[in-house]
Amino acid sequence: MNDQIFDLAQGLVPANYIKQARQARQARESLLKTLLAQRRLPEHGWDEPTLKLALAELAALDSNTFVGNAGVGEREGRVICPLVAARHFGLAHGIGRSGDIAEAQPKAAGSSLIYALTNALAADALRRAGGAGVSECVTLPLATGMSVTLTLLALRQLRPNARHVLWPRIDQKSCLKAVSAAGLTPVPIENLLDGDELRTDLDALAAKLSEIGADDVLCVLTTTSCFAPRGVDKLLDVARLCAEQGVPHLCSSRDTAPPTGLNPRWAIASASRHGRLDCFIQSTDKNFLVPVGGAIVATADGRHGPELLAKVRSTYAGRASISPVLDLFCTLLHLGADGWLRLLERRRASFPDFRRKLEVVAAKHGERVLHTPNNGISMSVTLTPPEGSKPAGSLGASLFVRLVSGLRVVTPSAAGKTVGGIPFESYGAHYSGYPCAYFSVACAIGIADGDVDLFLRRLDKALAEWKKPPRQPKAKAGGADGAAGN
Amino acid sequence: MNDQIFDLAQGLVPANYIKQARQARQARESLLKTLLAQRRLPEHGWDEPTLKLALAELAALDSNTFVGNAGVGEREGRVICPLVAARHFGLAHGIGRSGDIAEAQPKAAGSSLIYALTNALAADALRRAGGAGVSECVTLPLATGMSVTLTLLALRQLRPNARHVLWPRIDQKSCLKAVSAAGLTPVPIENLLDGDELRTDLDALAAKLSEIGADDVLCVLTTTSCFAPRGVDKLLDVARLCAEQGVPHLCSSRDTAPPTGLNPRWAIASASRHGRLDCFIQSTDKNFLVPVGGAIVATADGRHGPELLAKVRSTYAGRASISPVLDLFCTLLHLGADGWLRLLERRRASFPDFRRKLEVVAAKHGERVLHTPNNGISMSVTLTPPEGSKPAGSLGASLFVRLVSGLRVVTPSAAGKTVGGIPFESYGAHYSGYPCAYFSVACAIGIADGDVDLFLRRLDKALAEWKKPPRQPKAKAGGADGAAGN
Amino acid sequence: MNDQIFDLAQGLVPANYIKQARQARQARESLLKTLLAQRRLPEHGWDEPTLKLALAELAALDSNTFVGNAGVGEREGRVICPLVAARHFGLAHGIGRSGDIAEAQPKAAGSSLIYALTNALAADALRRAGGAGVSECVTLPLATGMSVTLTLLALRQLRPNARHVLWPRIDQKSCLKAVSAAGLTPVPIENLLDGDELRTDLDALAAKLSEIGADDVLCVLTTTSCFAPRGVDKLLDVARLCAEQGVPHLCSSRDTAPPTGLNPRWAIASASRHGRLDCFIQSTDKNFLVPVGGAIVATADGRHGPELLAKVRSTYAGRASISPVLDLFCTLLHLGADGWLRLLERRRASFPDFRRKLEVVAAKHGERVLHTPNNGISMSVTLTPPEGSKPAGSLGASLFVRLVSGLRVVTPSAAGKTVGGIPFESYGAHYSGYPCAYFSVACAIGIADGDVDLFLRRLDKALAEWKKPPRQPKAKAGGADGAAGN
Amino acid sequence: MNDQIFDLAQGLVPANYIKQARQARQARESLLKTLLAQRRLPEHGWDEPTLKLALAELAALDSNTFVGNAGVGEREGRVICPLVAARHFGLAHGIGRSGDIAEAQPKAAGSSLIYALTNALAADALRRAGGAGVSECVTLPLATGMSVTLTLLALRQLRPNARHVLWPRIDQKSCLKAVSAAGLTPVPIENLLDGDELRTDLDALAAKLSEIGADDVLCVLTTTSCFAPRGVDKLLDVARLCAEQGVPHLCSSRDTAPPTGLNPRWAIASASRHGRLDCFIQSTDKNFLVPVGGAIVATADGRHGPELLAKVRSTYAGRASISPVLDLFCTLLHLGADGWLRLLERRRASFPDFRRKLEVVAAKHGERVLHTPNNGISMSVTLTPPEGSKPAGSLGASLFVRLVSGLRVVTPSAAGKTVGGIPFESYGAHYSGYPCAYFSVACAIGIADGDVDLFLRRLDKALAEWKKPPRQPKAKAGGADGAAGN
Repeated sequence: MNDQIFDLAQGLVPANYIKQARQARQARESLLKTLLAQRRLPEHGWDEPTLKLALAELAALDSNTFVGNAGVGEREGRVICPLVAARHFGLAHGIGRSGDIAEAQPKAAGSSLIYALTNALAADALRRAGGAGVSECVTLPLATGMSVTLTLLALRQLRPNARHVLWPRIDQKSCLKAVSAAGLTPVPIENLLDGDELRTDLDALAAKLSEIGADDVLCVLTTTSCFAPRGVDKLLDVARLCAEQGVPHLCSSRDTAPPTGLNPRWAIASASRHGRLDCFIQSTDKNFLVPVGGAIVATADGRHGPELLAKVRSTYAGRASISPVLDLFCTLLHLGADGWLRLLERRRASFPDFRRKLEVVAAKHGERVLHTPNNGISMSVTLTPPEGSKPAGSLGASLFVRLVSGLRVVTPSAAGKTVGGIPFESYGAHYSGYPCAYFSVACAIGIADGDVDLFLRRLDKALAEWKKPPRQPKAKAGGADGAAGN
Repeated sequence: MNDQIFDLAQGLVPANYIKQARQARQARESLLKTLLAQRRLPEHGWDEPTLKLALAELAALDSNTFVGNAGVGEREGRVICPLVAARHFGLAHGIGRSGDIAEAQPKAAGSSLIYALTNALAADALRRAGGAGVSECVTLPLATGMSVTLTLLALRQLRPNARHVLWPRIDQKSCLKAVSAAGLTPVPIENLLDGDELRTDLDALAAKLSEIGADDVLCVLTTTSCFAPRGVDKLLDVARLCAEQGVPHLCSSRDTAPPTGLNPRWAIASASRHGRLDCFIQSTDKNFLVPVGGAIVATADGRHGPELLAKVRSTYAGRASISPVLDLFCTLLHLGADGWLRLLERRRASFPDFRRKLEVVAAKHGERVLHTPNNGISMSVTLTPPEGSKPAGSLGASLFVRLVSGLRVVTPSAAGKTVGGIPFESYGAHYSGYPCAYFSVACAIGIADGDVDLFLRRLDKALAEWKKPPRQPKAKAGGADGAAGN
Repeated sequence: MNDQIFDLAQGLVPANYIKQARQARQARESLLKTLLAQRRLPEHGWDEPTLKLALAELAALDSNTFVGNAGVGEREGRVICPLVAARHFGLAHGIGRSGDIAEAQPKAAGSSLIYALTNALAADALRRAGGAGVSECVTLPLATGMSVTLTLLALRQLRPNARHVLWPRIDQKSCLKAVSAAGLTPVPIENLLDGDELRTDLDALAAKLSEIGADDVLCVLTTTSCFAPRGVDKLLDVARLCAEQGVPHLCSSRDTAPPTGLNPRWAIASASRHGRLDCFIQSTDKNFLVPVGGAIVATADGRHGPELLAKVRSTYAGRASISPVLDLFCTLLHLGADGWLRLLERRRASFPDFRRKLEVVAAKHGERVLHTPNNGISMSVTLTPPEGSKPAGSLGASLFVRLVSGLRVVTPSAAGKTVGGIPFESYGAHYSGYPCAYFSVACAIGIADGDVDLFLRRLDKALAEWKKPPRQPKAKAGGADGAAGN
Repeated sequence: MNDQIFDLAQGLVPANYIKQARQARQARESLLKTLLAQRRLPEHGWDEPTLKLALAELAALDSNTFVGNAGVGEREGRVICPLVAARHFGLAHGIGRSGDIAEAQPKAAGSSLIYALTNALAADALRRAGGAGVSECVTLPLATGMSVTLTLLALRQLRPNARHVLWPRIDQKSCLKAVSAAGLTPVPIENLLDGDELRTDLDALAAKLSEIGADDVLCVLTTTSCFAPRGVDKLLDVARLCAEQGVPHLCSSRDTAPPTGLNPRWAIASASRHGRLDCFIQSTDKNFLVPVGGAIVATADGRHGPELLAKVRSTYAGRASISPVLDLFCTLLHLGADGWLRLLERRRASFPDFRRKLEVVAAKHGERVLHTPNNGISMSVTLTPPEGSKPAGSLGASLFVRLVSGLRVVTPSAAGKTVGGIPFESYGAHYSGYPCAYFSVACAIGIADGDVDLFLRRLDKALAEWKKPPRQPKAKAGGADGAAGN
């Protein structure tokens, strides 16, 4: 509504009511103005009417929504199913152009604005979450795996002759596949067992690097997003090694700030400042509570980051879905700076509580929580199978049926498994020959106290059942369940 | 978005794209501006993004949506269920104030605007549909029955001593109840049988009027919305009688224009011009294809209408739901003038087709379509029960099960029925002793050709079944079905 | 989804995943089953997916949504604007039939179910909120004013010769209009001033009742929903008088339970049990945080209530909008019993806090909160105009501009005002000659702590400004503002 | 709703209404049952209530929506912004697992089902559109460019030593980038000029293939989606060459059936049957009118397709957004087989009309439509610049401002341009030295007659303006506009 419309409205509704409404509208418009001017998270999250109005306004800038537009191109953003059009607020052109995923589209000024703003908001969110120095972000409508692949493909254009990716072992298939998909050779570096915890073996990494030769190593790929008993990688140490050797360093990361009480050495920020960490990649779903399908490639490394991010943007071929970008845009505005920090804080505060309660349940059944001080999200509990050889897996199956999702049972075994063409021992345990079976759970962002308590009650029952010496007929059923659960 | 926001946007997206988007936005804003300036249906229906944006803009003018509002009243438009808030686009304050349902609310400039515009749009729609001279409308969030009650209550305040409502018989309970609910005495006037058709008995009406005395007659209540074989009331003749006798005249009407090929004498417009027709009342669902729950009280009578409508507005006690108003607002903007006329035209064109096809099916089974030239919407077909005394009602039941909705079977019977305290013979037939059983169907607005063909196919089958001489056991089942269907 | 569909799904997705999903679906279905079986609020509010699924399921039971339905009636629930159809979840037939607003519609089994369930849920919600003995509810798609009118029209059919409504004075126009709209004669009973508070004058009420004669009094109409300094009516005493005299008693009520710390004598429940309180009427928006437009007529009086409620239902002429009913249905399921009680509790807990803080601000500016122990929602603060005769109204205007909504300023004046044909002195103050000017605010359900603090900060500033001795030119502006604010 | 719920409903609503509603529900459920059983497009498109209900049902099978689920994993599908959750119907887990994008997820049976069904529906839609023999589809949440990249990466795993991609020149950057992004070497094959039209130079292709050697050629990449005056590639001839040489053949295609009146030799189906066409890739937005962001990799080649598609699925690293998949799912069910064929038919019927009208406008201004019989979608019109050297680009700019989107102006120039590291002459014209300037427009699917007429009116005006000999000052403005438009 503009001034003329407000003036006309006074012909239908008393002028003083309209005057007040106009003031309110200006207040709301100033939220959008501030967003465009500052390109930072609003201090407080936007209410839904403001958010919807902003989306309607932005969508109205794309040519497929223009009243009186005549579209004679191959691609005019026509959407035939009304339900589909509505769920995207009328946005249809996606993002990107052939040259660069972040280039503005002539037909889609609104979509282009949303993408530019989302990247700016994401960078601000990361900085506020502890990622000091984050200078740039590219939000990709690809989940983490493919985002790593794309980043590697981009890096390869900068270092066309390097073929190896050094990779402290982390038993997540998608990570390994991300490397193979890019046509590169992953070189796993076994972890060290430090007490209960698995840590980066820096010496082995340095040795392998000099063995292959820095010129033939495309990059080192670390992670800070892993299941206990693996701890986060020693980012700063790896970053220093990479700086020294002139080798790029990528990190698949979950969190930009150190968990409370941890030695902050591993943090993204210090690794970027004191060593070399070209960029880090975060999934939007795990970090920002949106549906699966997006990731952020960000950098806090002013020397190597900008060039790599520019190459990532220009490597992405053609257009892309705006959908995961839009989810992040809406979510960041919905949260605002205060909501975002509250969310992080709540997760951090939940972790020691969850751990304490888990220790109680574990102890009750003769088990213990593994000591993994370098993992602020995931926890593991030993599983000592009872007599009668009930497999550890059957515990997982019985919890799955009890509506507990996300619990992983790991049973180390000498049997090998080949993943992505590479043979592994005890795949899943991040280590050849971990001393015991265990299960892992996570205290992820957005977890509710209710979830934790519900889980612990069900775990308590399931452990009791699993530990109970089976009567003869039941043993069979247990075994069958266990098999089904594997 | 205002100019400052567009200027800022140029920092993120090339200026020429923003320039074009800004032009497009102005085009869209000018739709809203024109609406407020002209208060008429737009020539062409609005696209959904324009409509949604306008609703978001208007809702943002209500104080419950203001950012930073502090509400300390009893009624602050708080809506706790997000699903409810969303379905009303954030509107919560309803319409009306204690003084008048059309008075603007200080807390709800947006809702007030929507209501004022809806009344203006409805008047325009009625004029375009043939209601020449319609000068004023009140859209009520009440269906027709209660709207008639409210209008009668308002009229009573103008004529406090008149207690009788003369009412050419129309066997619809809600009409009779609308009169009783207002604490008034309905006086039914039996219809005349003219060939197959039932028409207003003007002589009986005039006689009853002089018998009771004009001073004690609150009004004559006619209808143009009835099931064949009843024809529409003779509006013009009644209007002339009312003008002569100084008695108010209300009409419960479906349609503002005469069906093609009908003598236009009955039309609202001519009755208002050449006689007295204080106001007419139309349901929004039957006329504008919105959900049940609203009605329009309109007038084309410059002498008596404005005073009555003002009284209707001020009689409505307190606030009211905006929901049926909003439905009409959205629908009229969605249709636009061209969509609205196309809809009316399509219905009018369908009627003779439907009738012709119905005649064929009826003839095939030895029945005929009753000749009711003064009903342009409803048609009736005779039902001659087959041997074995299968009741006519069983045909209705068998079509209901076949997913035919809206067909009414009428079997005249000598048995009396008391409705609203008044004894009737053959209630449902609008007449004591109609010569045959029949069923009625309507060619209502929005009917699709598919509906008609589907119905006729099912009717053909059902008639064949119904006419078939039953085997002995089946006769019972038929009877039982019939009973269930009554 | 039924068993066959789940079996087929196993051809596409592993059977154990489908098995778990099927269990989850049964859990969700059992929520709906329990609702239909118990017809009570669920213990915990439903999540939005469950609510949406239930609405989709229920809407699918109405014939306008049937796949393959052939509609040949006058009213087939066709909705032409997709935005309108979507916002009603496909429901189009409204509620009610000509005979009774609560009668099931053959074409709309889903809508009929929703209406029946809403009435049951509302009764349960009222009982849980302290309305012990509430046996029956009718949810009307009418706001309070028209619901009172309808109830009076229904009552008149039971007592056709009684014309007067005795009415302890409450200066809300819609209440008075509700009586006049029904064609009845309101008889105001002046209140007593008890300290700061205005209370029901029982002696005057009894005297007027015997003066007019019980046979000519249709009912006594009390209220428990009023602005301080008026206290709630003495329900129990009035109820005893009505029982004794055989006169019906209606109450326009906000709350079914006594505020904490109040003498519970006034409560609906005890008045219904120990005296006569035929029914009470509550707006859905003020009590359940839905948009304006609905009200509940309920009874806890087993002797007089059922007959009156049946008459209310059958007096409503024709069909009605389901929209306000649907809002209540969604909201009650969204809240659940725990959410509903938490909401009530929070409001009750906020009241003393709000009052305490208000006392501090008032004292700072030399004013005081009026002592009104019998009003648990509304509070009033004296306004002593400063030198220079700045009107009290100008304070209201300056707060309105500061985005404070809902504050009412009352300035007693000797000037009379005629409302609904009845002359009043000091209209707005519920009393002829209240000793001082004051403003009222409410601690209504759903109020947030943020609202209260924001209001108090703005009030503090506005009072300071208002009290400040004006410089000469400013006095004029102040006066003008004040005038604008009246 | 299940049988128990229906039985309970009969306690609230008459049994015969419930019976009919239950029948209707079974009819609706049988639509879903048929979909799961047949995995083909429904004969008729689903109405929106059916579609929404199915989505709600399917979403309810994912664990993040389970009532009473305790999520303790890293990824629990939590969505914090209600607007985001609603727009995805509650789906949050995306698709795919680390092993394979089409693998079912234990936490997301509903999402997994949607993905499996979408692939089946897409294959059916392609077959019905003329893609006889299409046996398999993978819908990717990647637009065409990245889908080509992924397919090439997959193919490379099958032929690790082949590095070259032979590529009949098509001047679309994203196509070239798709090859480079995969780390491969594109080898452009210049087109032949045949009259006005540019066609595949088969001899040059064969020569280059034997020069490089089949073992070092990863594949030939053809296209049937190009701007006139380029015609579609000679698919069948290329397919025969590839079959003979044992070289894979990929096609980036728009349409699966030959345009009416064209020699069908080029069609996907015959190339797959009589030669080698491993797979073809289609964008979902251009072909199915959904928002940008998805593509379909399909095959009709039983010998080479299945292996390649399996590799494509397993190459995709990790999870992916379901959003573009969901758009296609909704759209295909909304259209149904009849809607889909009607859409294709309408486009095919529009093409000759559009062309005829375009010829008239072109002739009026002394231009002509280029003769490009092998392009059934795009048309080009010569542009002979007027005296005064107004550049052709200025016509494009003036149409852009007139709200014509999608028109491309091409001015052949001797100046070279390097794209993706490869030098091109006259980039944009698909040919070095096309004889004239021209503009192209497309008759794309979903185009409305209104679009065409609006465009032609605006084109007529713009051509007249552009051809008009400029007055001196205007020449400058024209030049400036032109520059801005480039």
